[in-house]
Amino acid sequence: MIQYPNGKKSYTRISSTANRGMSLEDDINLSNAQYLLEDLAVIHKKPTPITIVTVDYPKRSAAKITGAYFKLPSTTDDNGIYKGRYIDFDAKECNSKTAFPFSSIHEHQIKHLRTVRKHGAVAFLIIRMTHYGTDYLIPAGDFLEYYDTTKRKSLPYSWIREKGHEIKARLRKPCDYLEVIARIMEQQEEQHAENR
Amino acid sequence: MIQYPNGKKSYTRISSTANRGMSLEDDINLSNAQYLLEDLAVIHKKPTPITIVTVDYPKRSAAKITGAYFKLPSTTDDNGIYKGRYIDFDAKECNSKTAFPFSSIHEHQIKHLRTVRKHGAVAFLIIRMTHYGTDYLIPAGDFLEYYDTTKRKSLPYSWIREKGHEIKARLRKPCDYLEVIARIMEQQEEQHAENR
Repeated sequence: MIQYPNGKKSYTRISSTANRGMSLEDDINLSNAQYLLEDLAVIHKKPTPITIVTVDYPKRSAAKITGAYFKLPSTTDDNGIYKGRYIDFDAKECNSKTAFPFSSIHEHQIKHLRTVRKHGAVAFLIIRMTHYGTDYLIPAGDFLEYYDTTKRKSLPYSWIREKGHEIKARLRKPCDYLEVIARIMEQQEEQHAENR
Repeated sequence: MIQYPNGKKSYTRISSTANRGMSLEDDINLSNAQYLLEDLAVIHKKPTPITIVTVDYPKRSAAKITGAYFKLPSTTDDNGIYKGRYIDFDAKECNSKTAFPFSSIHEHQIKHLRTVRKHGAVAFLIIRMTHYGTDYLIPAGDFLEYYDTTKRKSLPYSWIREKGHEIKARLRKPCDYLEVIARIMEQQEEQHAENR
């Protein structure tokens, strides 16, 4: 049993992570594939951006890249569509027990989240706290509000637990973030309806 | 002056393509960059999908990919957000004077267009008829309707001219497809308002 810092005991951890075991990226890719299969959403990880320098064209076989370099990504990892809404997020594993360092996210990725959010995207971060075995979904709005006003250089774990939404692992969806997004979108629609 | 097959004379061709000169991909990338700069839309080309086989880590310099292969893309080339709508499209150059062969698009790209459209995307194709120096935007709905019912293996040029929307080249937007999309979205909203 896991003793959480606030003294609460968690009985859900083991069952909710029983389907995990790979990297966060793998878990998200599997979840995306399952969303597609169930026709819930169309969300894909973007390929790793590279600069190709040399390509070899051997006879009668596929072209082979013989020299290339990794480029800094100018956008986030994953995007797509869910219930007519544009979805955009970045996923990061965090090995620290106490905080998620801002240096883990590139400056232009933060800028990208800010921009797509302004244009009406459902934008967020997924942070895996590897020590606790828990994945959190942080809406970009909450993240940016903290990022823009704090003097710290990281998101404290206490903040992540308070503001973040825990993501459960489910069968064939080892990182079922869409369930959290569905809940948030529902709440927004209710608030929107109340305000009319 | 260009004599079009239907006898119409075009005076716009030269001025509307004066800013072109590179590949369709380059022209779209430049247009996307300008949309971002003007804060109109956030649309990016996805990196080329590859499978990395070997990576070399020389001391004190960046990791170098020394062996990799091109993968078949499972989605379209570009996606992003415009006025809160999810945008998704593929761009193809066509060298034929008479038709755009379906074999130019991968089966899973057609499937992808179909799926995102069902989920509420603004999905389309951009086809550059290189012989005529003209770019056309074909809404995915129109394309799929033809594709699903025809026995032909290509889109006839006459169909492209009739159903497609000509894309103009403008300063810093050598393939200003967003102007066409804005017009289509406006028409849809008007129709929607009339139906209420």
